[in-house]
Amino acid sequence: MAELSVRSVLVTGANRGIGLGLVQHFLRMPKPPQWIFAGCRDPKGQKAQELQNLAYKHPNIIIIPLEVANPASIKAAAAKVGEHLGGSGLNLLINNAAILKVTTLETETLEDMSEVYTTNTIGPLLMAQAFLPLLKKAAQGSPSSGLSCSKAAIVNISSSGGSITSLYTWEICQATSYRCSKAALNMLSKCQSLAYKEHGILCVALHPGWVQTDMGNSPGQVPPVTVDESVQGILKVLSTLSEKETGAFLDWEGKVIPW
Amino acid sequence: MAELSVRSVLVTGANRGIGLGLVQHFLRMPKPPQWIFAGCRDPKGQKAQELQNLAYKHPNIIIIPLEVANPASIKAAAAKVGEHLGGSGLNLLINNAAILKVTTLETETLEDMSEVYTTNTIGPLLMAQAFLPLLKKAAQGSPSSGLSCSKAAIVNISSSGGSITSLYTWEICQATSYRCSKAALNMLSKCQSLAYKEHGILCVALHPGWVQTDMGNSPGQVPPVTVDESVQGILKVLSTLSEKETGAFLDWEGKVIPW
Ligand SMILES: NC(=O)c1ccc[n+]([C@@H]2O[C@H](COP(=O)([O-])OP(=O)(O)OC[C@H]3O[C@@H](n4cnc5c(N)ncnc54)[C@H](OP(=O)(O)O)[C@@H]3O)[C@@H](O)[C@H]2O)c1
Ligand SMILES: NC(=O)c1ccc[n+]([C@@H]2O[C@H](COP(=O)([O-])OP(=O)(O)OC[C@H]3O[C@@H](n4cnc5c(N)ncnc54)[C@H](OP(=O)(O)O)[C@@H]3O)[C@@H](O)[C@H]2O)c1
Repeated sequence: MAELSVRSVLVTGANRGIGLGLVQHFLRMPKPPQWIFAGCRDPKGQKAQELQNLAYKHPNIIIIPLEVANPASIKAAAAKVGEHLGGSGLNLLINNAAILKVTTLETETLEDMSEVYTTNTIGPLLMAQAFLPLLKKAAQGSPSSGLSCSKAAIVNISSSGGSITSLYTWEICQATSYRCSKAALNMLSKCQSLAYKEHGILCVALHPGWVQTDMGNSPGQVPPVTVDESVQGILKVLSTLSEKETGAFLDWEGKVIPW
Repeated sequence: MAELSVRSVLVTGANRGIGLGLVQHFLRMPKPPQWIFAGCRDPKGQKAQELQNLAYKHPNIIIIPLEVANPASIKAAAAKVGEHLGGSGLNLLINNAAILKVTTLETETLEDMSEVYTTNTIGPLLMAQAFLPLLKKAAQGSPSSGLSCSKAAIVNISSSGGSITSLYTWEICQATSYRCSKAALNMLSKCQSLAYKEHGILCVALHPGWVQTDMGNSPGQVPPVTVDESVQGILKVLSTLSEKETGAFLDWEGKVIPW
């Protein structure tokens, strides 16, 4: 198994939960990335304090203002990341930011369905479009043939709640808006894998486990997976991926999840 | 195989294509429904002329103004249908209306992604919410145990283009917005099947085939299936469904499609 070795990575929703965990684990790698772009929609806000402290100590963390439901914000972020990178490309785009509304099928509204889809599905699509030139550049600049996350990849953090086959945790939380958005995100990942293969970009949908974060925590239930365990698992899985896995839907332990 | 026998049915997008074909085939049944509610977003428009002519000749066709991307229109339609039905319920809701934008992954926009999702996915969700009381009433009023389309059912017209496994016709038309909306619709159908089972309502996602309609026709290609063949197939499949198939994804010939 090759080590994951990237010069540059961008994580959306990097100020808390799994996104923040990813930033921390990238820092702790034997050979940390030269640029860790930490997307955050409110860098000055209370919820970005921990990320700010981390960035203060580690100059390779660059906080990028980024609201993934806003095309203008995405474009501005891509321009800013491009400037930092100078002539080099972006190896790894991790679409992690997402929202979950605790709803039942009865209480879903047009507004919630739209908001969740815009953040969880359209956001990742627009992010990939905007960062495609930088991802292509990374792929072109890489000496290795084939596909890998060390070369150029889009990682969409999905959910086994978006598996139509399993409908994971339906009894605990129906959240149809979230499930629909993640099933659609899985479709998007598959489409991206077909469209971006020729550019040398690997695309994958990953379920991080049921994780102890603001999203994962639910009243009276402790999720089985810690952020550290999840992120360690994810990074290990990413290091193993090749063209065989592009377009796949895997969990944090590398197991294939049925659509 | 039992005959499909419904007292009342509502078809959305009933003024052309497969929707109009469904209305025509319901009329030709040995025992046609007493009420065929034909949802149409512009009943006075040019594109509703054929449906208007048909309704003029057949008083059991009731044209219902219905824009499925508009919650107020859906609510008004449900009230109107309820009035017509007097005390009885609605046996069959066919969510057929949909749009397709011929896009590539590169040309998708937030606006197109939203519009397609609102029509193709949120519309069917809101329709089922609004007509749930009438569907429940039909189920309660039925002497038969178990689930069937003759008793009470929601049929979501999906597409094998929404199968993440097969990505049907990707080479001809990427249409990621459409594919994402149909994958999400498949998830919705599965959620509905779980939530509405206890109410005696069968829920299914159906692929109508690649059909000769405005949507199906593409430059230089004649789709293999006629509207008549598709609709005949769909109605035959509906007549065979039981609780075993609730939550399934089937095509117009009854074959299971992988998610
Ligand atoms: N936790 C689980 O059990 C679990 C299970 C399956 C899948 N997942 C997936 O894992 C990913 C991370 O989840 P998590 O548990 O870490 O969630 P979380 O603790 O709720 O954190 C969500 C992050 O996304 C950001 N975000 C939300 N909407 C955004 C927007 N429009 N623009 C920019 N950033 C936005 C949040 O920023 P703010 O701080 O500004 O709100 C926050 O940084 C998500 O894709 C989630 O669906 C989680
Ligand atoms: N044709 C195929 O090959 C094919 C393949 C797979 C799946 N399907 C599915 O089969 C179903 C029917 O498709 P079709 O081929 O018959 O399409 P079509 O010929 O384009 O007809 C679409 C119908 O939907 C209506 N509609 C669209 N948006 C609406 C809205 N917001 N509110 C109310 N009505 C709306 C249209 O009304 P207007 O006349 O007012 O526009 C029209 O009646 C769709 O769900 C489609 O996705 C078709």
